[in-house]
Amino acid sequence: MQYHDILYQVSDRILTITLNRPERLNAWTLRMRDEMLHALQRANEDDDIGVIVVTGAGRVFCAGMELDRPEGNIFGYDTPQGEVLDITQIRDSGGELSLALYRSKKPVIAAINGAAIGVGITMTLPMDFRIAAAGAKVGFVFSQRGIVPEACSSWFLPRLVGMQVALEWMLSGEIFSAEEGQEKGLFRTVTEKEDVLPAAYALAQKLLHKTSAVSLALTRQMLWRNPSFEHPMQAHCVDSRLMYITSERLDGRDGFRAFLEKRDPVFSAKVSETVPDQFDFWPEPPLA
Amino acid sequence: MQYHDILYQVSDRILTITLNRPERLNAWTLRMRDEMLHALQRANEDDDIGVIVVTGAGRVFCAGMELDRPEGNIFGYDTPQGEVLDITQIRDSGGELSLALYRSKKPVIAAINGAAIGVGITMTLPMDFRIAAAGAKVGFVFSQRGIVPEACSSWFLPRLVGMQVALEWMLSGEIFSAEEGQEKGLFRTVTEKEDVLPAAYALAQKLLHKTSAVSLALTRQMLWRNPSFEHPMQAHCVDSRLMYITSERLDGRDGFRAFLEKRDPVFSAKVSETVPDQFDFWPEPPLA
Amino acid sequence: MQYHDILYQVSDRILTITLNRPERLNAWTLRMRDEMLHALQRANEDDDIGVIVVTGAGRVFCAGMELDRPEGNIFGYDTPQGEVLDITQIRDSGGELSLALYRSKKPVIAAINGAAIGVGITMTLPMDFRIAAAGAKVGFVFSQRGIVPEACSSWFLPRLVGMQVALEWMLSGEIFSAEEGQEKGLFRTVTEKEDVLPAAYALAQKLLHKTSAVSLALTRQMLWRNPSFEHPMQAHCVDSRLMYITSERLDGRDGFRAFLEKRDPVFSAKVSETVPDQFDFWPEPPLA
Repeated sequence: MQYHDILYQVSDRILTITLNRPERLNAWTLRMRDEMLHALQRANEDDDIGVIVVTGAGRVFCAGMELDRPEGNIFGYDTPQGEVLDITQIRDSGGELSLALYRSKKPVIAAINGAAIGVGITMTLPMDFRIAAAGAKVGFVFSQRGIVPEACSSWFLPRLVGMQVALEWMLSGEIFSAEEGQEKGLFRTVTEKEDVLPAAYALAQKLLHKTSAVSLALTRQMLWRNPSFEHPMQAHCVDSRLMYITSERLDGRDGFRAFLEKRDPVFSAKVSETVPDQFDFWPEPPLA
Repeated sequence: MQYHDILYQVSDRILTITLNRPERLNAWTLRMRDEMLHALQRANEDDDIGVIVVTGAGRVFCAGMELDRPEGNIFGYDTPQGEVLDITQIRDSGGELSLALYRSKKPVIAAINGAAIGVGITMTLPMDFRIAAAGAKVGFVFSQRGIVPEACSSWFLPRLVGMQVALEWMLSGEIFSAEEGQEKGLFRTVTEKEDVLPAAYALAQKLLHKTSAVSLALTRQMLWRNPSFEHPMQAHCVDSRLMYITSERLDGRDGFRAFLEKRDPVFSAKVSETVPDQFDFWPEPPLA
Repeated sequence: MQYHDILYQVSDRILTITLNRPERLNAWTLRMRDEMLHALQRANEDDDIGVIVVTGAGRVFCAGMELDRPEGNIFGYDTPQGEVLDITQIRDSGGELSLALYRSKKPVIAAINGAAIGVGITMTLPMDFRIAAAGAKVGFVFSQRGIVPEACSSWFLPRLVGMQVALEWMLSGEIFSAEEGQEKGLFRTVTEKEDVLPAAYALAQKLLHKTSAVSLALTRQMLWRNPSFEHPMQAHCVDSRLMYITSERLDGRDGFRAFLEKRDPVFSAKVSETVPDQFDFWPEPPLA
């Protein structure tokens, strides 16, 4: 796939994906969705990529959905022939990205270099970390457009900031600052605009330092999926299986030996070979 | 229904419900439950009401359950004939209110003008926001009365303050201050007593400013219900359906057009006509 | 059972369990697991115990899994005859402790007197409160050993500190200070090392002050289990049952009478006689 609306650059085991429509404030298109899904799948399969950083070209991160489209097909609801789609087949494009991020085998850091509005902020909620530029404007503006929050954001936001804050931002649709976002727990860090990407790379390096790639992939999935179980017994079953496999057959073998020998471990297990796309203990519900 | 234990007043699209037994510190009665349930249903059906504020008459918000009843029928467990009810039919009255608040199509703000003890504080947890008077005493006192937390408060409280704080307040049964409640995330704001109601109205006006009533109703339900799904795929299915309906058939149509034309949108969709009491993707469990 | 790796001491209705392998920094063994499970079951059955405090002997709380074992049987995966176990039968030993803590009928306070690494910190997450020594080192170090988080910690940690913080600690595997742990909500209190145990006992006394033992047992279970329900209706059904039983048949009877008579209540209901190990509304999933 030839990328047009994004850039894809790998360096030092870090993939940087850049939303790349700066003349349109990186507004979200269906093409951008297709390219993001492709890039994330490619990263899952590439053992030279350890961490993903997502940022925006130019002065903003993402101004939201691209509304100014000649053909009027904002959401992709119309077929090329103008037929109305079956409502049960219609999918929110932001949600398709959120689900791909949820399934990612590599940790993802949002480097929010400027304004993040609508899908521009909701797309970052399934990322593991958010670093934002001082003074950046942020808004879950859906109620002021007569629509509803998307990209599974009502599932993700309360897990980050609690119910009372999530309700205020999403009901009011108001614009707030990166600083308020940090105070309430949405952003891990707020830095000057020029320091956002360096801070994201520093965090990426911390995640990669002395860690096993298989451990990162599995731990990320365990943290996103196990808390949804009704009872910790179900997490215990997952833990027992994955602890056995990693410690007896994968990177835990040298991890323990190195610890006892007071040297750095050699982690050689490959995510592409050992971490499946699906685990039987985490079934994915069908598209209803 | 003629209200006796509450007041019901509408002004500027804001319904104010006042717990109105000031001579009894607004203690909770079965009649107050009946009137609250009636008032919330009426507000759901009235498109002239955009937001609900709940406050107390006199110097406290609600001192808890009314215990001093000549007939001794505190919980409504006894029939008029003194027969003992079937245990599976018995319902906690605070929980009946909490469930009605959970289903509300209008955002609800608690204006906690003074002490809130027992059901006086648990009834506010399913409300979207809590503004409290400086120095007000608050307590989940159930363990000191030999009973247990009610009104679904064990479901709601950890979503607001996390497990460690919820456990300390509910196990100890201790009285704490509004200031501690704000520090721990229970209260959005603490103001002087005379500023509580004005602050609640200011928040209500912010929620109503430039927003769609249908967006508020649906967003409120999405935020309370979608996070309970085990997998974000299920939220994605809800998002896809509601985004399509609102953007193609309801207030999103003018919302987008107005945004492109740089003017304020005209939102005319009515909650009473377009938001059902039940959605098939959010089934309500039976009373077990 | 004769305890060897722990101490078990009861005073003033408080049971203190001490991890007692100070020469090995209280490193976790399968024997320690067996003794902890035995001690927790014994506490459930003993009405003279109101609250449990868990601490470590010597200068650390627990340095993690005991890795230096001559027989090489770190996880207990091998049978005495060296046969490889059926993978579906293998259980994470930290998780067995976490599940026993989850089911505890008595509140549990972690008095973290020094470093808590690996299972040393994950075992404290299902405890109700964590008090830590100033400067103590803490780390979810699994990714740096090539393994994964255990003891159901991926289920418990986000409930305490939210997703973004949980992801950073568990992906990076970094060591952090007790002070950072307090700032992020993991620890209730940080005190000087010599004040950790006194602070834990003060908290225990607060929980015991004027409260009903049956209320503590039931409230603890309600707070850990009810939030997992998909809908608050399910919590309402639990509340209704337990409120009826406690108020009409157990400690609520004198609780209300004493409140009206402005005297201290006499709570005489026994946990051992009135709180079952299993409730039908909280079924425990099978070991998969």
